[in-house]
Amino acid sequence: MSAPFADRLIEGVRTKNTPLCVGLDPFADKIPALFGNASDDTSSILKFGTAIIDIARQHACVLKPQLGLFEQFGEMGYAVARMLVSYAQSEGMLVILDAKRGDIGTTAEGYARATIGGVPGFNADAVTVNPYMGKDTIEPFITRAEAEAKGVIVLVRTSNPGAGDFQDLQVGGAPVWRRVAEIIAPECARLRGASGWSGLMAVAGATYPEEARVLRDAMPEALFLVPGYGAQGASAGDAVSGFVQGPNGREGGVVSSSRAVLYPQAAQAAKSMAEWRAAIGDAMAAAAGELRAACTS
Amino acid sequence: MSAPFADRLIEGVRTKNTPLCVGLDPFADKIPALFGNASDDTSSILKFGTAIIDIARQHACVLKPQLGLFEQFGEMGYAVARMLVSYAQSEGMLVILDAKRGDIGTTAEGYARATIGGVPGFNADAVTVNPYMGKDTIEPFITRAEAEAKGVIVLVRTSNPGAGDFQDLQVGGAPVWRRVAEIIAPECARLRGASGWSGLMAVAGATYPEEARVLRDAMPEALFLVPGYGAQGASAGDAVSGFVQGPNGREGGVVSSSRAVLYPQAAQAAKSMAEWRAAIGDAMAAAAGELRAACTS
Repeated sequence: MSAPFADRLIEGVRTKNTPLCVGLDPFADKIPALFGNASDDTSSILKFGTAIIDIARQHACVLKPQLGLFEQFGEMGYAVARMLVSYAQSEGMLVILDAKRGDIGTTAEGYARATIGGVPGFNADAVTVNPYMGKDTIEPFITRAEAEAKGVIVLVRTSNPGAGDFQDLQVGGAPVWRRVAEIIAPECARLRGASGWSGLMAVAGATYPEEARVLRDAMPEALFLVPGYGAQGASAGDAVSGFVQGPNGREGGVVSSSRAVLYPQAAQAAKSMAEWRAAIGDAMAAAAGELRAACTS
Repeated sequence: MSAPFADRLIEGVRTKNTPLCVGLDPFADKIPALFGNASDDTSSILKFGTAIIDIARQHACVLKPQLGLFEQFGEMGYAVARMLVSYAQSEGMLVILDAKRGDIGTTAEGYARATIGGVPGFNADAVTVNPYMGKDTIEPFITRAEAEAKGVIVLVRTSNPGAGDFQDLQVGGAPVWRRVAEIIAPECARLRGASGWSGLMAVAGATYPEEARVLRDAMPEALFLVPGYGAQGASAGDAVSGFVQGPNGREGGVVSSSRAVLYPQAAQAAKSMAEWRAAIGDAMAAAAGELRAACTS
């Protein structure tokens, strides 16, 4: 069996010397015409995705496909997402499936099998899950992750503008998201690797850096998935605010960037595939470098 | 364009004279061998689903496929679910896709398109959504529902054992789920039909009947989707506790039953397709009748 997901992730971050995670968000209207018409033809999404992976694997250890943007293309979109998960893994990347699933026990088992179980599901390395329905709805994901050395990433504090509507409601002096962290934290030991980090991870939005530090105290072992860096407005320094000192500088999770590395202006203006590849490589190198600097400053 | 979803739903409930909604939860290990080996062959799920729909349409106006139990079969499971949605609609049923999606704005638009948009997505009549990420993550579903006369069903108070872990946390004297209801309620007018009911619906777990009455006060126009009746232990009386007086008795939503009507003991023991059909018909008639009685008592 593979090493625990947490160890594979932190080893990847240390080897690449950056916590960059490339988010794969296929917006049909932003994919350059070089790849064909993505609105009409899912093979364009497949071509775009494989081209992104070929560059991403040089700069980042993790790919995060955004499943909602594949599902809009029906079962062909689902199939394309699955092929890209498999391709990224064959190229040495870890894959976090950004699916944000959550349901009662027996259905959660189905989602766990679909996302981090074997074929005919995605067989991804980790999956994002929504805690609103309660701890018992997360349990089937943790159980499967334990059995297959995978990871489970709980939405604790998200990065979107309305994140606070419910997550920030005050419960006895602390916000709801902190109670989520407290209820999940005791389970972290079950997915802990030899590194000491746990693959029972937390989403800790980069747009709220002070809260990431509070969340680090509440979940000291949990690796973080940090969204919100780049297009959503958070700086590299904000993004790593929940990280702690490790062997190569600060560490403690991965920081996702999607639009800024998939659709940079220079790539959108590219006249050839070579120009496009250069522009994407530049954008990913810049993000990887900026995050590397933030971890070592 | 179709009539508003709320009007189509309440008209269906009045015509069938029961709020029964048949949940379509394909558990591979429970589907009788009469349909082939569902663990190995998704065509067994398709056969089972079409046979269920042929009986369900006689007893209920709504079908609720549980997407997580299809996704575990990969893109073929997704395709089978989509065929069953379309088949149920062609047989005159409304379809609530139980997908429990939720994500930030642009991804939520993708999920809305995938679930209640047109082909190649599911083109279902309504979809369940998770509110944890905030009101802005539900907005894209409401916008699409407005444009296409569809419905959006927000998980407010679920029926599972751990539902209270976060939903019941007390915020200034009221539970989190009540705050969810308060934040969603003002949007109900956007999906209100001529009947006065709104297709911006709430999940109101039958296992908590007193809370359904409180939720009715907080969201007077919202139709309810009530899970938990039958296998999860709630009575028919509990299930309709959030309903109010209508032209044919109490009304105000639909009550879902899955395992009790899909896998009754008599059907599991059936030796022929005719015996199986009779057993399923009996179970659905019993559930429909019990709920009818609860609405008129």
